[in-house]
Amino acid sequence: MARAAVVVTGTEVLTGRVPDANGPWLAEQLRGLGADIGAVVTVGDRPGDLASALRFAASGHDLVITSGGLGPTADDLTVAVVADALGLGIGLDTALETRIRAVVDRIAAARGWTTPENELAAGTRKQALVPEGAAVLEPVGTAPGLVVADPRGGPPVVVLPGPPSELQAMWPTALDDPRVRAALGLDDGAEALHERTIRISGPPEAELAGLLREHEQRHGRLEAAGLEVTTCLRDGDLEVVTRFRPRASPAYDALEHAVLGRFADSVYSTDGATVDEVVAAGLRRHGWTVATAESCTAGLLAGRLADLPGSSEYLLGGVVTYSDAAKTTHLGVPADLIARRGAVSANVARAMAEGVRQRFGSTLAVAVTGIAGPGGARPGKPVGLVHVALAGPDGTGTHRLHLTGDRAHVRARTVTRCLHLLRAAVGGPGD
Amino acid sequence: MARAAVVVTGTEVLTGRVPDANGPWLAEQLRGLGADIGAVVTVGDRPGDLASALRFAASGHDLVITSGGLGPTADDLTVAVVADALGLGIGLDTALETRIRAVVDRIAAARGWTTPENELAAGTRKQALVPEGAAVLEPVGTAPGLVVADPRGGPPVVVLPGPPSELQAMWPTALDDPRVRAALGLDDGAEALHERTIRISGPPEAELAGLLREHEQRHGRLEAAGLEVTTCLRDGDLEVVTRFRPRASPAYDALEHAVLGRFADSVYSTDGATVDEVVAAGLRRHGWTVATAESCTAGLLAGRLADLPGSSEYLLGGVVTYSDAAKTTHLGVPADLIARRGAVSANVARAMAEGVRQRFGSTLAVAVTGIAGPGGARPGKPVGLVHVALAGPDGTGTHRLHLTGDRAHVRARTVTRCLHLLRAAVGGPGD
Repeated sequence: MARAAVVVTGTEVLTGRVPDANGPWLAEQLRGLGADIGAVVTVGDRPGDLASALRFAASGHDLVITSGGLGPTADDLTVAVVADALGLGIGLDTALETRIRAVVDRIAAARGWTTPENELAAGTRKQALVPEGAAVLEPVGTAPGLVVADPRGGPPVVVLPGPPSELQAMWPTALDDPRVRAALGLDDGAEALHERTIRISGPPEAELAGLLREHEQRHGRLEAAGLEVTTCLRDGDLEVVTRFRPRASPAYDALEHAVLGRFADSVYSTDGATVDEVVAAGLRRHGWTVATAESCTAGLLAGRLADLPGSSEYLLGGVVTYSDAAKTTHLGVPADLIARRGAVSANVARAMAEGVRQRFGSTLAVAVTGIAGPGGARPGKPVGLVHVALAGPDGTGTHRLHLTGDRAHVRARTVTRCLHLLRAAVGGPGD
Repeated sequence: MARAAVVVTGTEVLTGRVPDANGPWLAEQLRGLGADIGAVVTVGDRPGDLASALRFAASGHDLVITSGGLGPTADDLTVAVVADALGLGIGLDTALETRIRAVVDRIAAARGWTTPENELAAGTRKQALVPEGAAVLEPVGTAPGLVVADPRGGPPVVVLPGPPSELQAMWPTALDDPRVRAALGLDDGAEALHERTIRISGPPEAELAGLLREHEQRHGRLEAAGLEVTTCLRDGDLEVVTRFRPRASPAYDALEHAVLGRFADSVYSTDGATVDEVVAAGLRRHGWTVATAESCTAGLLAGRLADLPGSSEYLLGGVVTYSDAAKTTHLGVPADLIARRGAVSANVARAMAEGVRQRFGSTLAVAVTGIAGPGGARPGKPVGLVHVALAGPDGTGTHRLHLTGDRAHVRARTVTRCLHLLRAAVGGPGD
């Protein structure tokens, strides 16, 4: 299997100020292509460190991918260092310079920049410098990418910009390059690798591991059957990802059957659909609408329901009632109920859900009230206690969650649990 | 300055399923000691990849730190690979084995494990294997760490466990080791390294680069003055991070003065505070409250205002009005205004902001209405067009944004721009 190494440049990544999103994303892309990732090296904006990282990456790998260091400023030095490492000269691509300048001018006009002409020109010229023989990947922002061949026979180097949105948008173009295709063996008629994902809400990883062991006792080693199974916990759910060649399809079907047999109630997707997509499809299928009432998540649930394009078909809106008074005024939660039960209670969650459902006239409504921490705990109401409620045509149900972790984690996990409530309400595709 | 390299092992980190917390944490620790970090290499659980990562890390660095791969199972192979790389034999430390076993027995009893005796014994024995001449760092969990000297004169290798809590608890012990102290020059009277961050909203990176060049023409090379400056674009803002020894403080002050002189209007933080923190501090200082009215961001702005602990002091809540009807019903936006101007218009943004301010009785209110895409564009109203409005005691201002990128990017960037509107409204610390 072809192996790639990723070199991430940037002092801000090295020192942890900005987490690297590109290494993991590229790892996933390569996996989807039947290739593999051997190493991710992060170095700061220092030419010597970048050069030695490039040497390390070139050895034992078929392709080197760099991210970052393509900006207009002096500390962006990837192109110069890559060219130097491969013994290549650098030249100005004047046509590219013109294209970059057009983008820069457009941005400058839109944002009202008053940058002096000589600075814009210097930055643009720097970004239009191209090593000998390199192919230019058209810029998505202002920075072009490159595919640079090693004249001495080492692996080609794909030079990509650091901002994840630019890198991701440019990646398909990089894959069109014949040198990249050859390095990754994309045209060798290798069988496509299937990847199937089962998503399960609920059971612990150990229980799934037990099921896999039993399955192997009956059907033989998964690996011997051509199945590469990885399980991982993501956002509170278990993901079972299996990769296999087409001939191993029957073995995969048997495995999926076994997982469904054991976890029928909690498997919510066998086609890779996320819980967000399952909820969206269910709401559309029924022609239902939804509204939200949020306290500690403060809009993150409504925001996530609007993540998918076309969500205006089912999301009417919601109310963020961070203060107690707002819960009364905007959702009709009786003030004395809040006084008696506390804002974080099943009763208030129920009243919030019913209040927002009535006010927005939605089919379903979800409400959240909880203590995300670090402050706000009271006797009997610890940080991580969250009450959620789902109101619908058949009445209102409430659930008490006890979540661990920091403020951000409690809020994010709460949003996911609400999506699972909605998933249960819309039912499976057959309902 | 002494430089260390970090080698992170673990397929789950390499593939991005688990983000690496140890590299950034170690980078910060080293900075505090006046040392520096040169590279972080992540490799999977494969001996060959780990060996070549160790070779890369040993060259050009004074100290190598590994994290992970110390568990009791077969895929935990760091100790064996480190010993092999340094040409050292490995022996069983029976006293250590006894201490580890005591910990394992305690955990097994507490958690009710039913692991067979032979598996426990094998795992414990594996964790008690120590390379020749290595110093043992007492385990925090069950895995001991090591300081391993290279008999051939290479940098010493500090072997630490992967779980961040264990690694962090063990780090002070590692710093007691004379070989580690010598490698980092800790007894040479090295000075701590300062790090200062300036955050700027607005100017392009090229303009900052121009300023830095001018500054160097007047005051000499920044590096020669002992300043290591890196600039990076984050979330639409420019971050200027400078690291320096205490003796370079006057040079840093001159640089900060120059940046403030040029970008007085757009520098919003010289102490590393984020825009979120500046807004929170400003609202608190004035005793002001805020409410939100959101269409395309659908709660993400309110959610972000609630990111910081204690936000209930100033965030009253908000309304997500995703549908036109909701804008009318819940914010009082006249239906005929929406019909005439369109839901995505300055007039509707203004009416939303004023409507939510009046309904929540907040000091300030921010409203968002826009087209996040990919659908929804109309003639004259392209994807990325967002109108935002800020209402306050002195009236209401509106702004038209033209954002690029995908749906998620348009929404996230809109939220940041709204935070900057609030920042302008609360003014600087001196206001």
